[in-house]
Amino acid sequence: MTTIDPTPVSANLAVSADSDRRLISAHRVQGTAVYDRNDNRLGTVEDVMIDKRSGQVAFAVMSFGGFLGLGERHHPLPWSVLTYEPRLGGYVVGLTREELEGAPHYEPSAAADLSDTEGRRVYDHYKQRPFYLDVA
Amino acid sequence: MTTIDPTPVSANLAVSADSDRRLISAHRVQGTAVYDRNDNRLGTVEDVMIDKRSGQVAFAVMSFGGFLGLGERHHPLPWSVLTYEPRLGGYVVGLTREELEGAPHYEPSAAADLSDTEGRRVYDHYKQRPFYLDVA
Repeated sequence: MTTIDPTPVSANLAVSADSDRRLISAHRVQGTAVYDRNDNRLGTVEDVMIDKRSGQVAFAVMSFGGFLGLGERHHPLPWSVLTYEPRLGGYVVGLTREELEGAPHYEPSAAADLSDTEGRRVYDHYKQRPFYLDVA
Repeated sequence: MTTIDPTPVSANLAVSADSDRRLISAHRVQGTAVYDRNDNRLGTVEDVMIDKRSGQVAFAVMSFGGFLGLGERHHPLPWSVLTYEPRLGGYVVGLTREELEGAPHYEPSAAADLSDTEGRRVYDHYKQRPFYLDVA
């Protein structure tokens, strides 16, 4: 247990370069572009879904497809499939547009609150382990 | 491994009541009020800080104090100290204004990107375990 120090904790933050940062704010994730491995823009991270119990980010919600918002779908993606690429200033996923066409999604108007069964299906689809569902 | 089903995963979402929901979007957390145990409003959740590696929510960032934004401070709070209270439509923390006065904080203009040392200090301050720092 360290002693309590009421001084601002940001005192020595200015030195950390962006790439060194371990933490990122949800505000900065929201609106960030998502690309495939060939630098083709797939969509935008609209939001992040948090598991209330574990505090784990369950999904990044990516908008995909459509034109001027018409026909757009929201794709829940396991956080673990997103890799930030500084060169692009966005996230890269190992998915193609064709693969996303057949991926789990919902209408933008729907709540991004997946049931545990739906959540597992999405993680299975991307062959990721649903850590947030493993928490008692 | 379940079979892949391209149908919208939101098909059966409408039935889940808000209180039943396991997941919450960062958008809904941002701007939610925070109260003490006596229903006194302490501040507002401004943002959520995510650990890139583990996908754990490291902190909820609560604005506190000041008047019309002047003198306002940002307090990083372990996610685990926030409890949602439907009656208030906000989060409750077991903290008083006096306790927050001496709690770790930073200026709103500063990046909410705490070093691991600062992060541990905040968790120690609130006697919580910094799960996100325990991930390799």
